[in-house]
Amino acid sequence: MRLLIINPNISRGVTDLIEAEARRAAAPDTRIEMATARSGVAYIETRFEAMLGAHAAASLAGERLGHYDALLIAAFGDPGLMALKEVLDVPVTGMTEAALMTAAQLGQRIGVIAISRRITAWYRECVDRNGLLARLASIRYLDHPLHDPGTVQQDYADRLLALSRLAVERDGADVLILAGAPLAGLARGLKGQLPVPVVDGVSSGVCQAETLFRLQAGGASQGSFAHPPVKAHLGLPVGLQALLDAGRP
Amino acid sequence: MRLLIINPNISRGVTDLIEAEARRAAAPDTRIEMATARSGVAYIETRFEAMLGAHAAASLAGERLGHYDALLIAAFGDPGLMALKEVLDVPVTGMTEAALMTAAQLGQRIGVIAISRRITAWYRECVDRNGLLARLASIRYLDHPLHDPGTVQQDYADRLLALSRLAVERDGADVLILAGAPLAGLARGLKGQLPVPVVDGVSSGVCQAETLFRLQAGGASQGSFAHPPVKAHLGLPVGLQALLDAGRP
Amino acid sequence: MRLLIINPNISRGVTDLIEAEARRAAAPDTRIEMATARSGVAYIETRFEAMLGAHAAASLAGERLGHYDALLIAAFGDPGLMALKEVLDVPVTGMTEAALMTAAQLGQRIGVIAISRRITAWYRECVDRNGLLARLASIRYLDHPLHDPGTVQQDYADRLLALSRLAVERDGADVLILAGAPLAGLARGLKGQLPVPVVDGVSSGVCQAETLFRLQAGGASQGSFAHPPVKAHLGLPVGLQALLDAGRP
Amino acid sequence: MRLLIINPNISRGVTDLIEAEARRAAAPDTRIEMATARSGVAYIETRFEAMLGAHAAASLAGERLGHYDALLIAAFGDPGLMALKEVLDVPVTGMTEAALMTAAQLGQRIGVIAISRRITAWYRECVDRNGLLARLASIRYLDHPLHDPGTVQQDYADRLLALSRLAVERDGADVLILAGAPLAGLARGLKGQLPVPVVDGVSSGVCQAETLFRLQAGGASQGSFAHPPVKAHLGLPVGLQALLDAGRP
Amino acid sequence: MRLLIINPNISRGVTDLIEAEARRAAAPDTRIEMATARSGVAYIETRFEAMLGAHAAASLAGERLGHYDALLIAAFGDPGLMALKEVLDVPVTGMTEAALMTAAQLGQRIGVIAISRRITAWYRECVDRNGLLARLASIRYLDHPLHDPGTVQQDYADRLLALSRLAVERDGADVLILAGAPLAGLARGLKGQLPVPVVDGVSSGVCQAETLFRLQAGGASQGSFAHPPVKAHLGLPVGLQALLDAGRP
Amino acid sequence: MRLLIINPNISRGVTDLIEAEARRAAAPDTRIEMATARSGVAYIETRFEAMLGAHAAASLAGERLGHYDALLIAAFGDPGLMALKEVLDVPVTGMTEAALMTAAQLGQRIGVIAISRRITAWYRECVDRNGLLARLASIRYLDHPLHDPGTVQQDYADRLLALSRLAVERDGADVLILAGAPLAGLARGLKGQLPVPVVDGVSSGVCQAETLFRLQAGGASQGSFAHPPVKAHLGLPVGLQALLDAGRP
Repeated sequence: MRLLIINPNISRGVTDLIEAEARRAAAPDTRIEMATARSGVAYIETRFEAMLGAHAAASLAGERLGHYDALLIAAFGDPGLMALKEVLDVPVTGMTEAALMTAAQLGQRIGVIAISRRITAWYRECVDRNGLLARLASIRYLDHPLHDPGTVQQDYADRLLALSRLAVERDGADVLILAGAPLAGLARGLKGQLPVPVVDGVSSGVCQAETLFRLQAGGASQGSFAHPPVKAHLGLPVGLQALLDAGRP
Repeated sequence: MRLLIINPNISRGVTDLIEAEARRAAAPDTRIEMATARSGVAYIETRFEAMLGAHAAASLAGERLGHYDALLIAAFGDPGLMALKEVLDVPVTGMTEAALMTAAQLGQRIGVIAISRRITAWYRECVDRNGLLARLASIRYLDHPLHDPGTVQQDYADRLLALSRLAVERDGADVLILAGAPLAGLARGLKGQLPVPVVDGVSSGVCQAETLFRLQAGGASQGSFAHPPVKAHLGLPVGLQALLDAGRP
Repeated sequence: MRLLIINPNISRGVTDLIEAEARRAAAPDTRIEMATARSGVAYIETRFEAMLGAHAAASLAGERLGHYDALLIAAFGDPGLMALKEVLDVPVTGMTEAALMTAAQLGQRIGVIAISRRITAWYRECVDRNGLLARLASIRYLDHPLHDPGTVQQDYADRLLALSRLAVERDGADVLILAGAPLAGLARGLKGQLPVPVVDGVSSGVCQAETLFRLQAGGASQGSFAHPPVKAHLGLPVGLQALLDAGRP
Repeated sequence: MRLLIINPNISRGVTDLIEAEARRAAAPDTRIEMATARSGVAYIETRFEAMLGAHAAASLAGERLGHYDALLIAAFGDPGLMALKEVLDVPVTGMTEAALMTAAQLGQRIGVIAISRRITAWYRECVDRNGLLARLASIRYLDHPLHDPGTVQQDYADRLLALSRLAVERDGADVLILAGAPLAGLARGLKGQLPVPVVDGVSSGVCQAETLFRLQAGGASQGSFAHPPVKAHLGLPVGLQALLDAGRP
Repeated sequence: MRLLIINPNISRGVTDLIEAEARRAAAPDTRIEMATARSGVAYIETRFEAMLGAHAAASLAGERLGHYDALLIAAFGDPGLMALKEVLDVPVTGMTEAALMTAAQLGQRIGVIAISRRITAWYRECVDRNGLLARLASIRYLDHPLHDPGTVQQDYADRLLALSRLAVERDGADVLILAGAPLAGLARGLKGQLPVPVVDGVSSGVCQAETLFRLQAGGASQGSFAHPPVKAHLGLPVGLQALLDAGRP
Repeated sequence: MRLLIINPNISRGVTDLIEAEARRAAAPDTRIEMATARSGVAYIETRFEAMLGAHAAASLAGERLGHYDALLIAAFGDPGLMALKEVLDVPVTGMTEAALMTAAQLGQRIGVIAISRRITAWYRECVDRNGLLARLASIRYLDHPLHDPGTVQQDYADRLLALSRLAVERDGADVLILAGAPLAGLARGLKGQLPVPVVDGVSSGVCQAETLFRLQAGGASQGSFAHPPVKAHLGLPVGLQALLDAGRP
């Protein structure tokens, strides 16, 4: 299986973190290809930044159309995920979606650890859009300005561990998600030190993408994830055009 | 007050419909300026198309930064609305948001009439994101291929009226929203013929934008609608850059 | 437009506060008329007091039937609002309803600042009945016995400011409502000092009533806000009789 | 135990129906006293009518203060129920509340049979205020103008039976409530003919009032059902004054 | 009326507590019979333990089939309650269900006091399954290892009282449930000392079972509480067989 | 990985269906072992039957403790799933849970096709307990008595296909789950014939179990899925004892 993983941010350092964890998680016959947004911001914390990331990710997904069997959107809040599910006929998942659906099988109430305060409102909305707000125990967050998203794991290791424990002890979390691509791989490192199962968006995303590919559940020709109806369009970059035109008979 | 109304679709005919209704609804001291997306699709029915519209609308909003006192996003589902609220320090509303908040003061349960079947899933998600799903009576829709979004009102007048009545009689709607920019102005025409109040997204949007401007409620320097934190960005068109850079001290 | 504003409490001092803010907010062509309940309590904090206020407000609304184009119920929790919407064929809104629908366009999660602890349960129920409980960040409250509802703004200015900041910093509010007629006008005063937009029930109510009037959305002859079916009644004061009889053919 | 049952409507014929069923249901040591509203309408179908009924019922409850050990509000939608719980220190329940809490122990999803179409919106809101909307299977209703609320059981026996069966077969009801005082006693008559348990508001109300009295759960000196804070009042009838003044130390 | 009360735990000391409170609460003509689980654990705190208790309780209920007119499941979380409602044609209630439905008539928001931290997740799920999560103020709990469930009331009397007050003052509870059979009877003792009404699962359960019996609401031949369809079964103890076979024509 | 799949029903024919589909779906290095309940019913449609299945499944899981790396509960409604997650330190998933979490990545609103009318209430409750009721489009069902759960696929192939199409066209499903072990493998057969992706509980369960095993997310020593506290137990079969005793230090 060819798995395209798109980092909707422009940070190549974070792409490297994602790739490393993805390779550790992937099945032997999964061929991983990485792509990094050519436009956008260093890391997504807000709805506006997510809109930029969605556009950049969709452009990349359109340019490589036909060269992957499944797609993983590898940034916080799954920018563009629902949109891409409409135009692609291969499985698409996102770090948040995959982590939530995995975590939901490991505990009833889910705690989320996030890398900044600002990001929490956006993440809460994402959990809500996945329909799982009632299972959200809390979102705890690092309350420091981020120097470098590529080193946040090392810079704040102790604080992240402490936040994780508070989510269990105070908020009733049965399972934790370490959220955000800059934390890719940290779950692997913290595992022995936490009182509940801990889930990572990248490795969850890789495994769920593999599952969706293997199940061959079929595409949508009706319903709200069928390809958008063919209609006039204008002024779009080539990748986005390719996605729209993929629906033409 | 200078009110910028952006049609996130490329259909100039629909922009004309919007403008006509906006001018009928506006207060005497409101100066309306219209803008039409330079990229995107003829009319938005899906999440992917909404993503394109959001990007186009944000670019226009950024290019004209400083030349308007309030902004109205004039397409179905309010593409880009939440994102733009983060980066602008003038009030921003959308046709769906404004229509819902207006309708909510005219009845308890809200019925929506939509221009296509495909659009209904996306609209249901929009109502949900506004937190008003519990007040949604139903979404009824035209089930015909749209020849021309600019003439749908005339082409299907009887059917739209029949759908409106069914929403009241069968679904328990206390108030109706005629949804979608192609229906702009229709509420005005149908009013005497319907058994409940009927709301139009464009006129609601104009009046709500005026209200938000007049109330001068203040901007956000904290919370999830403060400007996104300043950080590195790359490869963005000038309008979007302007919006991001508006947050720099 | 003739806008009748009814204070469902017997406190004329609060009526004066309401009137002052209403006049500051109203459009030039809005003619404001005030009315104060002839029966009831000094200020409403509970369901029982709201029942008294509803009855008094409805009596006044019935006595003046035909002399106003829109009605604003100007007390906390909108006593009698839904009942009056059934019997009047002009737009009716309330301070809570109008503030919520306005605030909902200025932020995603809404914080409420209330004048007493006791009032908070009732206010929470009001938010719920508007269908917006999921968007309520918190209700923070003055925890002091109120000497005089007419001077609570001055008596507790600092504390009200502090509560507002806590609602943003601790509870995640994106927008604030200063709730209760005794706080009428305070939002105008605090604006520069708060990190998020702040909304006042009276000025929101005036602007929303003007909007509903301008939109001329039409009345209800069906649905749950049509006039109650004609039937025998007995022993009612003249104002309430007038409202019931307004539905006779 | 002295149980006061207040019919918040002016229909003495319905009071008789209520009384007959109440006496059949009551324990031997329960002394039932009936009261009929002196003001209001023939039967309550709307929010406005419920407001009238609440006021009339509260006046009666205040006039007889001290002469009953428990109170049952015997009309559809429990007009004034929450208000009266605040001012009385004896248990108070209502037909809708008692029927819902009883039915909830007899099945998971509750079907409601109502006497008119108009009443259904108001009843849905009542179920919601009891927090049980998720357990509501449906509300089915007689769709005929009511000639006489006192004879609706006989006039429409077959139709009521048919509606009950549809609620089970089509809507998935596990238990039924025959709602509205005009249907008092009908459940007893239909029992053998229905495929699920069937609950009557009056007999449920009597038994629940007895239970609340026997349990002697204690009153509220704090929380949102403590007596409203003592404050100035004006212009109230003697019964309502008595209720307010009951809170004075 | 013959009321069978089953303690789904193996603790005979707790059975004695339950019996004492049940006899204090029961009507004169109620004949109480107690049964204690022959298999299972000392007291139920988790889903697994509840599964054991459900099985043991059902076996007892099946063995005594025909010898009781109503059944009360007397342990925390109502193990097996919904299952038993399907196979029995007499009323069945549980401590949690009966306490919730009683408390819901005494206040709007319900506080729960529990005997251990571990138990709280399971109890929250029970409140949710009763559809009343929106009315749950909080669950506060003893945070000490339990030496003996039969003496927890005495061992932690002060702490239980303090927790109750916190539920009112901090969490906004209008009414309290002292949850878990080991607390049977404590409500009676604490009553004068608490600022809100307080409800006990056992006495609520006895009174609600009596009410359900007196109302004779009828059984279910359709819907999800009709007897399970007749089908092959294998390897079941005699009590469970009896329950399954009770459905044979 | 050693994957134990337990059929909580006594039907060996259904076990064979499950096994066949499981082997088709499993990764090459997954070693599947099947177990069939020794007690219980032919197929589970109700809460009571699920209770029997839970007990039987748990006994088998306890007897084989230590001989599997992950567990799949392979019956409708996941009997015993949450209980087993508490006592096992290997991943446990169920057909319903796994199918829902997989389907949630393939569409927004989920349609369920069930094998009998009776089963639908129980399945609705399962979706609710997974927190995904808001994403449930509908449950459609075969409305015929089942002759043989082992041949229902063949007996009703056309009807199942028709129900699937109705779920898409009428109910707005974006993705379908063919629910119930007797339908194991049918999704694979229908795939080309349906307008949306279609998910099977067995293959989803196998892939999700593999994912949970591969992710090695760690166990729970705190939270509501930690092992139940050590306490006295009595009268339990050896398998259940083993599960309880697995928590002893």
